[in-house]
Amino acid sequence: MAEAITYQPIGWVESPFTDIEGMPIQPTGAADIDGTIHLEPAFVAGLKDLEGFSHIIVLYHLHRCTGYALEVVPFLDTTPHGIFATRSPKRPNPIGLSVLRLVNIDGAQLHVQGIDMLDGTPVLDIKPYLPAFDSPAAERIGWFAPQIDRAASTRADARFR
Amino acid sequence: MAEAITYQPIGWVESPFTDIEGMPIQPTGAADIDGTIHLEPAFVAGLKDLEGFSHIIVLYHLHRCTGYALEVVPFLDTTPHGIFATRSPKRPNPIGLSVLRLVNIDGAQLHVQGIDMLDGTPVLDIKPYLPAFDSPAAERIGWFAPQIDRAASTRADARFR
Repeated sequence: MAEAITYQPIGWVESPFTDIEGMPIQPTGAADIDGTIHLEPAFVAGLKDLEGFSHIIVLYHLHRCTGYALEVVPFLDTTPHGIFATRSPKRPNPIGLSVLRLVNIDGAQLHVQGIDMLDGTPVLDIKPYLPAFDSPAAERIGWFAPQIDRAASTRADARFR
Repeated sequence: MAEAITYQPIGWVESPFTDIEGMPIQPTGAADIDGTIHLEPAFVAGLKDLEGFSHIIVLYHLHRCTGYALEVVPFLDTTPHGIFATRSPKRPNPIGLSVLRLVNIDGAQLHVQGIDMLDGTPVLDIKPYLPAFDSPAAERIGWFAPQIDRAASTRADARFR
C-alpha cells in the first residue's frame, strides 16, 4: 500500500450554503452565487498577479462526506455509475474541484462567483484557470450526455450527506 | 490552524518521464505521450461507465517536490509570480491537475494520452471531464497571455526539483 499523503488547508470557503440539501450541484448552477475564499494570511504573497485571471480552479476537501462508495446514483441520473465516472462527493479521496469566477482580491480574501461549496469548506489549492491547458474539446461525455442540460437547475438532495 | 487532511493514493502513473528536466510542462505539450494509470485493484468497481468519456481529470500528488515557494519564476516567464497565479509544482499543497485523453480501460489500467506526470506519481482522484462544468469562457488569463503560445513546446528544466 502506498504511503498516506497529508495536506494542510490553505484557507476556507465562506458560502451561503450550510447544508448539502438544496445546493447547486456544480458552479454552472451557481453562476450568481457570491462567496469568499479566506486564505491563511501566511500565504497572501502567493496571490501576486492572480487578479489578472478571470477564473480560478479551486481544489478543496469535501469535509462533510464520511466514507465512500464505489458505485453511486448521482443527482443527475437514476441508475448507478462508478464513483470515478461521477462528480459525486463520496469519493475515496474526497477532493472537490470547481472553476470559479474571480471577482477581486482584497488582502487574504478572494471574492468569487459560482460557489457550489458548503460554508466552511477547507481549501487545498488555488490555480489560475487556462483554457489552453484545462479545456480540451471532448467528443464524449458518457452517461451525462442526455442529462447535462439539467445540470444548472438540478439541486442536491441529502443522498451524499 | 485547521486540521491536517490525509489521503491515500488510489493508484499511480506509469509514464516515460523519470526526471522533471525536459518534461512537457502541461498536457498540451504531451498530446502524443502515452501513459497508464494503474488503479489499486480494490477500486476497479469505481471505473464503471468511465469509458464513455473521451477525457478525464486526474488529480495527483507532485511527489518529487519538497517544500514550497510563495513566489516562483515559472517555466513560461522570466519574472516572479505568486505561486497561486502559476501552475508550478512547488505549491503549499503539491496537488497536480491534468486533463488527459482516455484511450481505453483494461481492468485496473487506464490507458491515457497527454501525460505530463513523472513515472510513479501517486494518483489521488479521477473525475469525468465535462466541458459544461469545467470549461467556462475565460476573458483574462493574466501574465500567461503573451506566453501561452509557447506552452506546448516549452520543456521543464530543473528549477522546481
